[in-house]
Amino acid sequence: MRAEIISVGTEILLGEIVDTNSAFIASKLPALGIDLYFKSVVGDNQARIVDTLERALSRSDLVIMTGGLGPTEDDLTRESIAEALGETPFVDPDLERPLRAFFAGRGVAFPERNVKQAWLIPSASAILNPRGTAPGWWVEKNRQEGDRYIVAMPGVPSEMNRMWEKEVAPRLREIAHGQLLITRILKTAGIGESTIDEQLSPILKTANPSVGIYAKADGVHVRIAAKAATEDEARALITPVEDEARRILGPIVWGVDDESLEAAVGAMLRERGLTLATMESCTGGLLASTVTDVDGSSDYFLGGFVTYATEAKVARGVDPAIIEAHGVISAEVAADMARAAREGLGASYGIGITGIVGPTEVEGKPPGTIHIAVHDGVRAEPMSYTFNQGRVSNKRRAVTFALFLLRRALLAAG
Amino acid sequence: MRAEIISVGTEILLGEIVDTNSAFIASKLPALGIDLYFKSVVGDNQARIVDTLERALSRSDLVIMTGGLGPTEDDLTRESIAEALGETPFVDPDLERPLRAFFAGRGVAFPERNVKQAWLIPSASAILNPRGTAPGWWVEKNRQEGDRYIVAMPGVPSEMNRMWEKEVAPRLREIAHGQLLITRILKTAGIGESTIDEQLSPILKTANPSVGIYAKADGVHVRIAAKAATEDEARALITPVEDEARRILGPIVWGVDDESLEAAVGAMLRERGLTLATMESCTGGLLASTVTDVDGSSDYFLGGFVTYATEAKVARGVDPAIIEAHGVISAEVAADMARAAREGLGASYGIGITGIVGPTEVEGKPPGTIHIAVHDGVRAEPMSYTFNQGRVSNKRRAVTFALFLLRRALLAAG
Repeated sequence: MRAEIISVGTEILLGEIVDTNSAFIASKLPALGIDLYFKSVVGDNQARIVDTLERALSRSDLVIMTGGLGPTEDDLTRESIAEALGETPFVDPDLERPLRAFFAGRGVAFPERNVKQAWLIPSASAILNPRGTAPGWWVEKNRQEGDRYIVAMPGVPSEMNRMWEKEVAPRLREIAHGQLLITRILKTAGIGESTIDEQLSPILKTANPSVGIYAKADGVHVRIAAKAATEDEARALITPVEDEARRILGPIVWGVDDESLEAAVGAMLRERGLTLATMESCTGGLLASTVTDVDGSSDYFLGGFVTYATEAKVARGVDPAIIEAHGVISAEVAADMARAAREGLGASYGIGITGIVGPTEVEGKPPGTIHIAVHDGVRAEPMSYTFNQGRVSNKRRAVTFALFLLRRALLAAG
Repeated sequence: MRAEIISVGTEILLGEIVDTNSAFIASKLPALGIDLYFKSVVGDNQARIVDTLERALSRSDLVIMTGGLGPTEDDLTRESIAEALGETPFVDPDLERPLRAFFAGRGVAFPERNVKQAWLIPSASAILNPRGTAPGWWVEKNRQEGDRYIVAMPGVPSEMNRMWEKEVAPRLREIAHGQLLITRILKTAGIGESTIDEQLSPILKTANPSVGIYAKADGVHVRIAAKAATEDEARALITPVEDEARRILGPIVWGVDDESLEAAVGAMLRERGLTLATMESCTGGLLASTVTDVDGSSDYFLGGFVTYATEAKVARGVDPAIIEAHGVISAEVAADMARAAREGLGASYGIGITGIVGPTEVEGKPPGTIHIAVHDGVRAEPMSYTFNQGRVSNKRRAVTFALFLLRRALLAAG
């Protein structure tokens, strides 16, 4: 099944909003066996929407539209579909009733122009939208080019996402008969792209599943993608390759698919009944904030110190003699920060981070110089590197490496 | 001048990357007096790229393309432009020389297929790309529909952004003769959209400049947009409306255009020679991290505590009697955290945040319950609200409100 996506909205053409809907939909189509050939954005202009839609219908079996279903004069998706198909909209009483009830329930007069949110055309049925007032349209039409489907969804991402998952994807699964593309992502830590490429060379040549290696912000991802008639068949193709990749890579694989590093490391802490404390200088609290982005992190995260000023480090127990001897930007200070965090909060593990996120150098050391240490109660394992991509990126990278290092310490502890 | 954007890349159609380039370009066109009518994404397939490009040339004066300029077989933008215009590519010696020198300089053999990065066609000239090996193409062609321009830029955002700012935008400014749309954004804090709408009603009716009100993550934005032949004329239209808006809104306007709240508040602290310390519970360090995203924040930010566990709060000087009397999720505890942070680090101002970011309730209070306080040395000004949009959103919102509150305290101090 050939598909294309049309996003409707002048605000996208003005660059005022980034169209994340079409990327969301695009990422979901391969697993349904639907091939996406084009994506377009068109403004709130009926002639141009109709033109774009007609061209799409001439070459694609399925056209997925988002936006333009609101109640205002600028919302022209319904009008455009009707015009492109040569049909006349009518008010559907089953849609009108809940719409009026919605306004009545809020004690607000019903604006008559909103009645178009209760429109249908003969080829269209309504798609439920419990998160908003605009139902979607599911359109089926036999044309001279063949059977055509149009799906129109609201532009508000939360409404669109729900409508896609609960209503649209299940129906598309019924009508699409293409090969499904199912992917499995193995996320790794602490080894470079080219090393993994070498190690995995025995399985990189396969065609189905295909194996790709991608450097991402949270480490290198190994992507195994299989095509098959059913999801089960695709998974059966993936499993032996995944097993082989895991055998080769060993413990550097820390998670799969949508898992985050902070959730993976947090789960290890919780399972073992261990706790964590942090002392951060250059990352300014981003490590603590990232750790606590995970639901239930209060089970293992006790707290942290953001010791931006040197005096704040000393006040929190860092040895001034170590600062004096090695400078505040040093592996030794990172190690002592890890110790002091651990002891200060009575945690199983402490993490210390010191460095320069930029843009100016400190103590003669360049921006991007980072020292991280994890203390397990016996000793601190430090790690140092210099890599400068700008202040905010430098902070993120340091947090990722700190979590890598904690994971390694937990694995080493067995 | 009518324009459209074509983004080339199968990875965009697969949803593996979000096309941020086209949003960037779209946001820059209004100030050049260029109207954007369509955006399209097409995969790495020459027939489909040519088809999309031909259609664009039939209806638009300017076609801006990104992606497909790499050296591989999948990079087909040059081939497609040549085919659409009926021209034959040739290797330009002035482009080939630096390309070969680049590889020689790295001690790497030159892959012969990369020579296509030195291609031109008769209608094209090269656009410098100091950040990468692929020059862009600037194409001018007189066709039966009229003069046509094609700009082809790399898909790597850092290369594209520089090429746009330094090379493409200045040339487009020369050839575009439309009305420029210049915008000025006033960013406000602490007042709702509808209140601002009421207050600004005297200036909301104007057509040029137009005034719009938008609720954003960092408060309500007032957007003043003027059309004129030159930037100076547009600014002259904006200035009296901006002055009037500022007169009406007063000190709730905290910044303009791209300014961030953390930078605006940081600048106030620096100007006055004041310092800040934080104690965070539910935001887990995000406030400290946000404050330290600003270059030079070490001038005024002394440090912070992330006191996730109740014992950590007490260890950092929060009065256990206050916790006992009011519960840890209370305005009183937020106020005492602000005091303890300020005193513990010897800062001019302290901020305390306690609350529940979710997903489960604590002490019988629902997720989204947040208490924030700013202590100035004399007293703590607290603020409480409940608003639940999920854990990560709840953290961000609390940080924004904390910065609003600090700004209000600084303004009150005069």
